[in-house]
Amino acid sequence: MATTRRPGGRSARVQAAVHRAVTELVVERGADQVTIPAVAERAEVNPTTVYRRWGSIPALLAEVAIVAEGGAPAPTGDLRADLADFAEWTLADLARPGGIAFFRAEVAADVDDRRAGLRECLKRTSATIEALLDRAREAGHEPPTLAEVMDRVVAPLYFRVVFSVPGTDAAYARHLAHAVSGKPESR
Amino acid sequence: MATTRRPGGRSARVQAAVHRAVTELVVERGADQVTIPAVAERAEVNPTTVYRRWGSIPALLAEVAIVAEGGAPAPTGDLRADLADFAEWTLADLARPGGIAFFRAEVAADVDDRRAGLRECLKRTSATIEALLDRAREAGHEPPTLAEVMDRVVAPLYFRVVFSVPGTDAAYARHLAHAVSGKPESR
Repeated sequence: MATTRRPGGRSARVQAAVHRAVTELVVERGADQVTIPAVAERAEVNPTTVYRRWGSIPALLAEVAIVAEGGAPAPTGDLRADLADFAEWTLADLARPGGIAFFRAEVAADVDDRRAGLRECLKRTSATIEALLDRAREAGHEPPTLAEVMDRVVAPLYFRVVFSVPGTDAAYARHLAHAVSGKPESR
Repeated sequence: MATTRRPGGRSARVQAAVHRAVTELVVERGADQVTIPAVAERAEVNPTTVYRRWGSIPALLAEVAIVAEGGAPAPTGDLRADLADFAEWTLADLARPGGIAFFRAEVAADVDDRRAGLRECLKRTSATIEALLDRAREAGHEPPTLAEVMDRVVAPLYFRVVFSVPGTDAAYARHLAHAVSGKPESR
């Protein structure tokens, strides 16, 4: 932490330490109990640094949630397989430790300021799906619309995780994706 | 409040006052800010009465949410119309003042005890849908499954209200229902 020769390196280390601290605290306490002083203490950085760089806990939570979900599978153009992989990954992302906690915290926020995290989350998910559908179109498929994928794949997965509906596993996620991607041979 | 001649009457009045107080406080402050002392004060009843009768805020919120949603339309046996009415009513229920606030509070709860409200909510919704599907079956239709209605009508409505997706209106709710209820002439 003391090295100042490479400011980029230090900044990246601070970010990594803060992200790790946020994730640990969300898992340990639930996202609604995470505060900037607690994050700063856990990350061993000055609270002022956290306030200056992220401004608020919602902004910080949104960033951590987005970085955490960085691993969306790259679309191959095979619509049916890509949608199933996307569905399985979305469920895994929600099911990871703290995954749904971020969503819960955003949903609970009844203040417009905090809703920014939800809007950001929706924008990122939409962009991921659009990329997948574009890739399928290039490969000669006739893909469903963004709204259809949201309504029939993403929404039921969120709903089922939030309500702890039994039987919500990877196979079910793929089943939802298959139902919206048409017949196996569709193109 | 002083009359004790009709205990049922007094009990019903206490319940009505407490329910009204909960709804007002949820709308004013958000469900996560509602406490038993605040409810008791607003309802002009003794906090002990509230603790004894409802035990906890989650139990109280769940009861109020359930009573508030009492008006689900009675199924007629016309599957397509019944599902569309149910979808429109579900959206209206989520959109009413405080409607989504109850859901937000339940979702935010990261404690098993508080999850009881979500389980209760899911059970009630399932029962309403099952009654609708049974009625359609009696009328000679081949209705979708409970899971299909949950995944394709209820889940997208919740998701769209939580994420404030534009264009989520009564017509959209009916469109979701029509997509799952098959062809207009299906039976």
